[in-house]
Amino acid sequence: MTFSVSQLAQVLATVSRLDSPSRYWVGFSGGLDSTVLLHALWRLQPPQELVAVHVNHRLHPDADEWAGHCRQVCRDWNVPLQVVEVNAKARRGESPEAAARQARYAAFQDLLGHGDYLLTAQHQDDQAETLLLQLLRGGGPAGLAAMPLVGRFAAGYLARPLLPFDRRALRVYAEGEDLKWIDDSSNAALEFDRNYLRHEILPVLKTRWPGYPKTLARVARHQAEAAALLSEMAENDFATVQGTDPAALSVSRLREFSGPRQRNAVRHWLGKQALDSPTEAVLNQIIALLDAAPDRCPAVVWRHTEVRRYRDDIFFLRRVLENPVSPTYLWAPGTELTLPELGLTLNRRELEKQGLVLPDTDLQVRFRRGGERIVLPGRRHSHSLKKLLQQRGVPPWLRQRLPLIYAGERLLAVLGLTPPIVAGGGVSRSGT
Amino acid sequence: MTFSVSQLAQVLATVSRLDSPSRYWVGFSGGLDSTVLLHALWRLQPPQELVAVHVNHRLHPDADEWAGHCRQVCRDWNVPLQVVEVNAKARRGESPEAAARQARYAAFQDLLGHGDYLLTAQHQDDQAETLLLQLLRGGGPAGLAAMPLVGRFAAGYLARPLLPFDRRALRVYAEGEDLKWIDDSSNAALEFDRNYLRHEILPVLKTRWPGYPKTLARVARHQAEAAALLSEMAENDFATVQGTDPAALSVSRLREFSGPRQRNAVRHWLGKQALDSPTEAVLNQIIALLDAAPDRCPAVVWRHTEVRRYRDDIFFLRRVLENPVSPTYLWAPGTELTLPELGLTLNRRELEKQGLVLPDTDLQVRFRRGGERIVLPGRRHSHSLKKLLQQRGVPPWLRQRLPLIYAGERLLAVLGLTPPIVAGGGVSRSGT
Repeated sequence: MTFSVSQLAQVLATVSRLDSPSRYWVGFSGGLDSTVLLHALWRLQPPQELVAVHVNHRLHPDADEWAGHCRQVCRDWNVPLQVVEVNAKARRGESPEAAARQARYAAFQDLLGHGDYLLTAQHQDDQAETLLLQLLRGGGPAGLAAMPLVGRFAAGYLARPLLPFDRRALRVYAEGEDLKWIDDSSNAALEFDRNYLRHEILPVLKTRWPGYPKTLARVARHQAEAAALLSEMAENDFATVQGTDPAALSVSRLREFSGPRQRNAVRHWLGKQALDSPTEAVLNQIIALLDAAPDRCPAVVWRHTEVRRYRDDIFFLRRVLENPVSPTYLWAPGTELTLPELGLTLNRRELEKQGLVLPDTDLQVRFRRGGERIVLPGRRHSHSLKKLLQQRGVPPWLRQRLPLIYAGERLLAVLGLTPPIVAGGGVSRSGT
Repeated sequence: MTFSVSQLAQVLATVSRLDSPSRYWVGFSGGLDSTVLLHALWRLQPPQELVAVHVNHRLHPDADEWAGHCRQVCRDWNVPLQVVEVNAKARRGESPEAAARQARYAAFQDLLGHGDYLLTAQHQDDQAETLLLQLLRGGGPAGLAAMPLVGRFAAGYLARPLLPFDRRALRVYAEGEDLKWIDDSSNAALEFDRNYLRHEILPVLKTRWPGYPKTLARVARHQAEAAALLSEMAENDFATVQGTDPAALSVSRLREFSGPRQRNAVRHWLGKQALDSPTEAVLNQIIALLDAAPDRCPAVVWRHTEVRRYRDDIFFLRRVLENPVSPTYLWAPGTELTLPELGLTLNRRELEKQGLVLPDTDLQVRFRRGGERIVLPGRRHSHSLKKLLQQRGVPPWLRQRLPLIYAGERLLAVLGLTPPIVAGGGVSRSGT
């Protein structure tokens, strides 16, 4: 498809059907693609405020020169420009590419106000590459959907209005308009896989399938639709497979589903809880839990996630070390206490809202080691915590995850249950 | 994964979970892959009868020599062999590859008895190629699912027990067992796209992604699962979106669905009716019918299919020429009459079952031109057919597709409606 200002206007009209844009932020690296995007937008003169954003990753010796070029272009076109410097140094185990992208999007996220649109310059060839890279990573429909034309991002939206156009069409426009751009190939060289694909494979592919970027863009749209439908199906199914515990799925109800539908529900449930996405092997193990004998307390553990069955419920949990060197935490008055093993933060005000009032002194938080006892309200003698937890039907593996609140050697409360177990005497429940 | 007889046994156990096989037919070209499959099966000595099938396409000068080689191998191993000669000449507009495949599978289909398994020798590398070819054709989930490990075929099943193994593993086995095979590369050369992929692209891909066939096989399984789920969703949805006419979908009910769900239902409905699958553009046009004004009688027409809206119903029809040179068909007693425009065959016995008895004389079948009149049972005067069809609420475009049965110049019956319109006098309804 030929690229022109009016073509861009049409795409923007489609893109902004979601929500009328209040402002356009344009990611502007100074390379060919984003120069074409910014130029066409400047020509279009939309009613919205237009701001260019140049992210300086400070990774390349010429990085400051590039920022200077972008300043000059924006001055010439009278488009306001923000230059944001980011720390794009990769952490251990992180690829430089991923670090740069994360830093860039974090910067964009900070800029966007409510209803603002971030516009980035990925085009049809980029989309085809992204799909192929996802394919070579073994992606499912959501991965093969590659980059959406528009989606929610931060307080507003992220749109890619050049996706319907190929690289050649943008180049034709740039040359026709006599634009100047930076050859940022050394920047792109960060993305090794993408560059291998781009330089070693795609030219050979293009010889026999000249229209492949358009074809693959269509595949990506079809996959996006499939992914959306599978999510819709899982969301509808959650109502049916809700367990007796609201955080769990019901084994007996899941078993009424077909195998693919079970796996779809589990996959989406994990995503919804922001837990690790399962490999194919892990997913099969989770499904095997459905057929395990209910008294076996079986579990599937991978990365930072564990899935456990207890009676008819399947729980999806953030993983806790198998034999943690149970730490004792000091909890000073007026502070919050974060328990990294549980991804949980204790806050006295929040606990008060649940009806639990703790003394305003230094407390300790521990985990079970066995032999704990607690004096319940109105009782003289202590009860074994183990027996109390058994009576409440708390699954064995959950018992190790309950924060125990101590004042000295006296157990005041056992959190992580609804309602919590509280001691008499030192602890009072508000309103009683 | 290493290939061995016991590995094959494991895969066969999985494959035959659907239905215990009564006999194995093994597609045996004499090439490396099918030689390995047949050899391992022969070694395995399954309780089922084992028959090799060699399809001679007669396309290659050495074709008879290949058949001779297969006879010799089967004699050595004492495995019964059937050699089937097929006419694999491509018809106009058909690729030689497609013609050969179709002829081959037609031959297999004739052989298979109830519960028999056809085993073919496609492996993991073939699967990866098939997925990539589907990708380059713009396939959806069903296409990207590539080849299933096992599925229904003819009266039995088609299974591909070598899919979990790559080409290298099969070669290692063949060399270890000192097997002889035909280099049928000239046969494979029929598949131009596949060969281009195999020789020009995949070696370069393998350099950076050595495990790509395994990865792509996983993608194919994921896509198969997605496709199965989307079908399941569509099947469930049909109950909801059934139109007032049982062959139609309801506009108002479809409109309650999300866009992707509408498209999924329409796509599957077309497939179910064995109509042409829609391109993305066609699908969008069909969806646009949902918003058309109900009095507009809009239509979407492509290839051999047309989709029409009438009131709240959307009809999916085999296409009829816009202005057909309405033929008049002679229908002799005791014969069936096929109306190619409608894909319909008239049979007097079938019509009798519907309560319509026609005289045992030469009849004519015509289509509407306008001005037709019919004398209804118990009436003296004739009625305008146009008015009768309007009263019955028959959509205008359907009125042109109704077979009109004439004896001479007398209109006896109007078919294609439930119940049909019948004349009094010459036509009697059985039981009245």
